[in-house]
Amino acid sequence: MRKTDVLIIGGGPAGVVAAVTGKGYYPDKNFLIVRREKEVLIPCAIPYTISSLRSLRDDLLSDKILRDNDIDLLIDEVTGLDLDSKTARTAGGEEIKYDRLVLATGSSPKVPRWLKGVDLDGVYFIKKSKEYLEQLKARALEAEHIVVVGAGFIGVEVTDDLVRAGKRVTIVEKLPGILPLAFDEEFSGEAERILKEKGVNTITGKGIKEIYGSGRVEGIILEDGSRIEADMVILAMGYRPNTELAEKAGLKIGESGAIAVNAYMQTSRPDVFAVGDCAEKRHFLTGKPMALMLASIAVSEARVAGMNLYQLRGRPHLGVIGIFSTVVGGVGFGTAGVTEKYARREGLDIVTGLFETVDKHPGKLPDAHRLLVKLIADRETGIIIGGQVMGGPSAGEITNLIGFAIQSRLTAQELFSLQVGTHPLLTSSPVVYPLIRAADVIKRKIHGA
Amino acid sequence: MRKTDVLIIGGGPAGVVAAVTGKGYYPDKNFLIVRREKEVLIPCAIPYTISSLRSLRDDLLSDKILRDNDIDLLIDEVTGLDLDSKTARTAGGEEIKYDRLVLATGSSPKVPRWLKGVDLDGVYFIKKSKEYLEQLKARALEAEHIVVVGAGFIGVEVTDDLVRAGKRVTIVEKLPGILPLAFDEEFSGEAERILKEKGVNTITGKGIKEIYGSGRVEGIILEDGSRIEADMVILAMGYRPNTELAEKAGLKIGESGAIAVNAYMQTSRPDVFAVGDCAEKRHFLTGKPMALMLASIAVSEARVAGMNLYQLRGRPHLGVIGIFSTVVGGVGFGTAGVTEKYARREGLDIVTGLFETVDKHPGKLPDAHRLLVKLIADRETGIIIGGQVMGGPSAGEITNLIGFAIQSRLTAQELFSLQVGTHPLLTSSPVVYPLIRAADVIKRKIHGA
Repeated sequence: MRKTDVLIIGGGPAGVVAAVTGKGYYPDKNFLIVRREKEVLIPCAIPYTISSLRSLRDDLLSDKILRDNDIDLLIDEVTGLDLDSKTARTAGGEEIKYDRLVLATGSSPKVPRWLKGVDLDGVYFIKKSKEYLEQLKARALEAEHIVVVGAGFIGVEVTDDLVRAGKRVTIVEKLPGILPLAFDEEFSGEAERILKEKGVNTITGKGIKEIYGSGRVEGIILEDGSRIEADMVILAMGYRPNTELAEKAGLKIGESGAIAVNAYMQTSRPDVFAVGDCAEKRHFLTGKPMALMLASIAVSEARVAGMNLYQLRGRPHLGVIGIFSTVVGGVGFGTAGVTEKYARREGLDIVTGLFETVDKHPGKLPDAHRLLVKLIADRETGIIIGGQVMGGPSAGEITNLIGFAIQSRLTAQELFSLQVGTHPLLTSSPVVYPLIRAADVIKRKIHGA
Repeated sequence: MRKTDVLIIGGGPAGVVAAVTGKGYYPDKNFLIVRREKEVLIPCAIPYTISSLRSLRDDLLSDKILRDNDIDLLIDEVTGLDLDSKTARTAGGEEIKYDRLVLATGSSPKVPRWLKGVDLDGVYFIKKSKEYLEQLKARALEAEHIVVVGAGFIGVEVTDDLVRAGKRVTIVEKLPGILPLAFDEEFSGEAERILKEKGVNTITGKGIKEIYGSGRVEGIILEDGSRIEADMVILAMGYRPNTELAEKAGLKIGESGAIAVNAYMQTSRPDVFAVGDCAEKRHFLTGKPMALMLASIAVSEARVAGMNLYQLRGRPHLGVIGIFSTVVGGVGFGTAGVTEKYARREGLDIVTGLFETVDKHPGKLPDAHRLLVKLIADRETGIIIGGQVMGGPSAGEITNLIGFAIQSRLTAQELFSLQVGTHPLLTSSPVVYPLIRAADVIKRKIHGA
């Protein structure tokens, strides 16, 4: 019988950060991570293993952080939990006794069982497995025409990297528009335009009905009956939380299908925490469950779990803001908080401010990019509750600025008065710094000044 | 006799933003900008007019923003003010009656009269004049070896652009280190290393004593008597506020030599405002006068003046944070708030946190840059009061994130719990997001966890 103070199941970003944070707060406790994979991929960069990264090996999460922080590691699979005796059993035959348990079991691609042809040779999912992705990469580099189903982040990023590899790609999205959940029309329209410019065949507002072929993929059939020939199909239709272990152990599952947790990431058993894709998320504003799965959210939850393992503290998780960014055809896109679409659907009374400029000044400097920023504020208070960005290499950090503003509950008026730093080669001009000018648009709509 | 409600003297970023902001808050008032220059340069990009921008014309501030906001413009020079009768006289013979006055008269290069040889042919300053800079550019492109005196932002940026033009450059700084006021050793050491790598001869901790030559510059003599031959010398030894007009009119001058203002940017006469380089600045933490002159600070003051012209509001200027960034040899550098050096000199009890990572993830992605972040916090409260960044194209906006944190009075503990968005091509990994990890270092130093 092996013993540890804190047992973490899962070695992705959530598991690692829960362990490292916990060890920082409780240095006298022992921490053990049990994970299945000998080598762990950095999940966010998986789409870029097709062509931007030469090899899957270039996308490995180093175990150095575990050694540096004195975290033990066991490569094995936990197959059963007894929450009363606080014991985990593994496939390798180990019994591990723990005092606190953290579930960071992640997620797996949704497999649409209703979809005819889903088992044909040449149909792939974006799984977080090195061996599987090596096969996918080899197949993709041989393929002539690839259909990607789903224009969420993963689908769009895979498409982008396939285009970089010189492939002919069709992307199919059931909802109207590219990245339809994360962006409003101004931005998803730009993303679609960019994909088209790069030669991608974009089909939106139309779902897939069938994959056809005999043994091997030959194409897909859309809902309207039209056929698209293809020799490879990548299904990027979302992920489902890995909850089997938790369910079997009797932990409560939330309405979204993920493990139910409170604001300290405690499950229905206070000594068991769940973090990352397997844990239920709630929207920071509406409190509703949401299915967004991002490593950045996972690690924010893991920090909360780590610091509260043995002592609850005054900084619970405040709900998911949903800050994320991507790149389409070399152009950066980012979103934080609510979109206008989401706000209107939920009945929030909002005001929006859109501002366009360039990300250097003057705009004639080499490599200056268009920079489009939209902010969304609560009408009564002026508090910023969302925003979107399209720009150059700084678009991700500008998105984080919006995320900071949301979390600091800044109003458009306060944002308008903030001091920012500018530089010709690194930012917009101080006169047209886009967050300030978009805040100004909102301020004027609210107050007429 | 011409009449306007609000008269703004000076058409640089401060004047323009004061006018546009004021017009937004008080749309019924008339706004008139009087400026000397037919065409105004974007001041921040002046160093880049030597080689990055093809022509000085590419660095002009467009007057479109004035037309769009219904701001009147007069090209003329105000030569006298009568604050009692609220009248301005111009060189062109106009008399202008106003109700509110905004001085945005800017700054001029310090000319060291004590320096022998300062009038020799081939000695230049970085003046904000298109015609003068055209001469400077032509001369620089012909020169063989150029000495730049002063390794503040302007000196370093001019050096950087001269190197890009293929010139041999020596930079001389009296204080120890490159960018010595803005950065701590970890960062100014890197800046010096980069300049050296690019072939720049860097001389720090040694001032200039003399410029020699007969009629035309032949070289300089340092304080230690050593000589450096050169056929051009650029003096970048700082700027002095343009206060002549204010002084003559009887407005109070502050201890730093700039026009004294309160937190609403009102001068000793409440109906006269001063903003930008000509107005005295106070440090956000110590309240001491400071001589920092940046367009970004100027526009933050201009926004405050503009909104308070006819009605004071609850958002005064909170003192200068001093957020700025630059690029040295393609590497981005940024600083916000206090440096460790400054804090120690002022006797502040601080804790610092340094963290190094890369600005993409995994680091094997093309164009990934080293990313070094330092945060400085007040020991008792953990409140972030400063930070520095070295990185790639996102370094300027990461610096703004630190600026936001300072202005929102976030503690290291709060920063550690913040949600951020990440993307392989746009940011560091969520596991090692540098602001969070540097905050973690501080948190552990303060609390041991």
